[in-house]
Amino acid sequence: MDIFEILKNRSRDLEPLISSYLKEGRPDNLMEAVRHYPRAGGKRMRPVVAMVVADAVGGKGKDAAPYGASLELIHNFTLVHDDLMDDDDTRRGLPAVHMKWDMPTAVLAGDALFAKAFEVLADVEVSDDKLRRLLKLTAQSVWILAEGQQLDTDYENNPNTTVDNYLNMVEKKTSVLFASAAAGGAIIGGGSEKQISDLYDYANMLGIAFQLWDDVIGLCGDESVTGKPVGSDIRNGKRTAIVIKALSKGGRGHPKYDELLNTLGNQDASDQEVKRAIEILRELGGVSYATELAERYVKCAKEKLGCLPDSKHKEFLVALADFAIGRSY
Amino acid sequence: MDIFEILKNRSRDLEPLISSYLKEGRPDNLMEAVRHYPRAGGKRMRPVVAMVVADAVGGKGKDAAPYGASLELIHNFTLVHDDLMDDDDTRRGLPAVHMKWDMPTAVLAGDALFAKAFEVLADVEVSDDKLRRLLKLTAQSVWILAEGQQLDTDYENNPNTTVDNYLNMVEKKTSVLFASAAAGGAIIGGGSEKQISDLYDYANMLGIAFQLWDDVIGLCGDESVTGKPVGSDIRNGKRTAIVIKALSKGGRGHPKYDELLNTLGNQDASDQEVKRAIEILRELGGVSYATELAERYVKCAKEKLGCLPDSKHKEFLVALADFAIGRSY
Repeated sequence: MDIFEILKNRSRDLEPLISSYLKEGRPDNLMEAVRHYPRAGGKRMRPVVAMVVADAVGGKGKDAAPYGASLELIHNFTLVHDDLMDDDDTRRGLPAVHMKWDMPTAVLAGDALFAKAFEVLADVEVSDDKLRRLLKLTAQSVWILAEGQQLDTDYENNPNTTVDNYLNMVEKKTSVLFASAAAGGAIIGGGSEKQISDLYDYANMLGIAFQLWDDVIGLCGDESVTGKPVGSDIRNGKRTAIVIKALSKGGRGHPKYDELLNTLGNQDASDQEVKRAIEILRELGGVSYATELAERYVKCAKEKLGCLPDSKHKEFLVALADFAIGRSY
Repeated sequence: MDIFEILKNRSRDLEPLISSYLKEGRPDNLMEAVRHYPRAGGKRMRPVVAMVVADAVGGKGKDAAPYGASLELIHNFTLVHDDLMDDDDTRRGLPAVHMKWDMPTAVLAGDALFAKAFEVLADVEVSDDKLRRLLKLTAQSVWILAEGQQLDTDYENNPNTTVDNYLNMVEKKTSVLFASAAAGGAIIGGGSEKQISDLYDYANMLGIAFQLWDDVIGLCGDESVTGKPVGSDIRNGKRTAIVIKALSKGGRGHPKYDELLNTLGNQDASDQEVKRAIEILRELGGVSYATELAERYVKCAKEKLGCLPDSKHKEFLVALADFAIGRSY
């Protein structure tokens, strides 16, 4: 199954919708900043998941497009604010909003995208009781996203971070919008309570697997394919599952442990030092641990799809889970 | 009528509600920042307007408390982000969130308050169709607030700003949450379409009058009463209605005009220069113009209350309009 073909096809319903929501608005300088990330593309994974799930439970995928667009706007709002908070300079090959404009514009453009997401939600054509449920689901997701972003900052360079801490953070920062997309798609499509719950879990685990695998290819992938400098997580001192596991295997006094610690969080580490740190992470079993963990999440995620009847939509969701791991970008 | 007594009484229903919404949540450092402004008080004008209006149209004020609390959270979210964007150091006698913590925490705490506001909205006990309407009203208000904040920045130190520009900005930045409070209160209380629309207009004009009067007392008031340094608007180069009108009266080449322009936007202006600028603003008719404009808005706002039957709630709304102007703080 060609996942990208399907993502592209589904986006055909989606792009005009997203553009239309961001067409009107003033003043022009704010609107340019508001449109900067949504226009730059992205895989639109969250809205596509919502649409495919709505189909998979027997509803109409198109009905979930506005809800999906709302989640995509929220995703973009968090990117604008996260890039500002983390001082990341680029996104999707473009300068970040706070770099192209400034801090105030980035704060405001994010807020405006957030507000628009809820305006779009008010237009979702579902029964009013479903709308109330979608509203709660979406608002709680954003609260959880904020928690996750705070934990991500708190855990950076924190030697006491455990794998459980890390997974909890990833669930909050990365998975929650996927999970809301799937659960919301199921609600809109008329799925049963069990389907809504199982599909939430599916997408939650899918999100964790995606992040674990991202960590792996961030270290072991090809920079020209991933688009992310190899080892940037190491220089930033990120306590990923890989790092946490390797450090727990090494133990204080272990020469490799000390060598690794010297490079972790050192922004000025040489390419050679970073390369050596990656070798140590492999040798101490961190990389294989994260890979196996990701595989376990994918397996569990696919089991949750047992709530769905067979269909091409279900097949897509299975393929998406497989795609989460093993990809090289 | 003692407006403050009524504000205080109504707040009794409100404070436990606001506290309860912000009780749960993690991590602790984020939650402390989230609670910083809401805990510091404020007059709770928006929720009180929503509650009084619900009573005034024949409903129950208490039913509008959660909606009002939602608006209060939005108001606080915008304060956190506005203080960051404008780099204002203090708020309600406390250090601003970005000063007590840092920029990322202020961005995130604002986002979390915003998310919580919509979660609270999902719990408002009204019929589902009313909820949809409140959702749209609230989301659109935040979009408009962002527009207003951008315009405020754009107009600062911009010599081409007209009084109409200024009033449009104030409507967006200050009035819109009052207007949503009144319209939402009317919706919740079961008011007629005419009442919903007229009360929106009432609160919109009330908000403009409040701001115009704030500008006046910011120049001519007693610093120890207003709590705001006299003339800070002048040093910041704010193009208020007072300034715009005075400049239009003076005209280029006019000695007072040039003297005024030299002080406007000059952060290093001496107290003596600021005092002289205020004198000129008075002499050129700027202060009396803004005062009369505020009085006109109050008059029109009160006329809109004709849609309400007589009651003590209506009396409060009349008194609130009178309070907007003439107050010394």
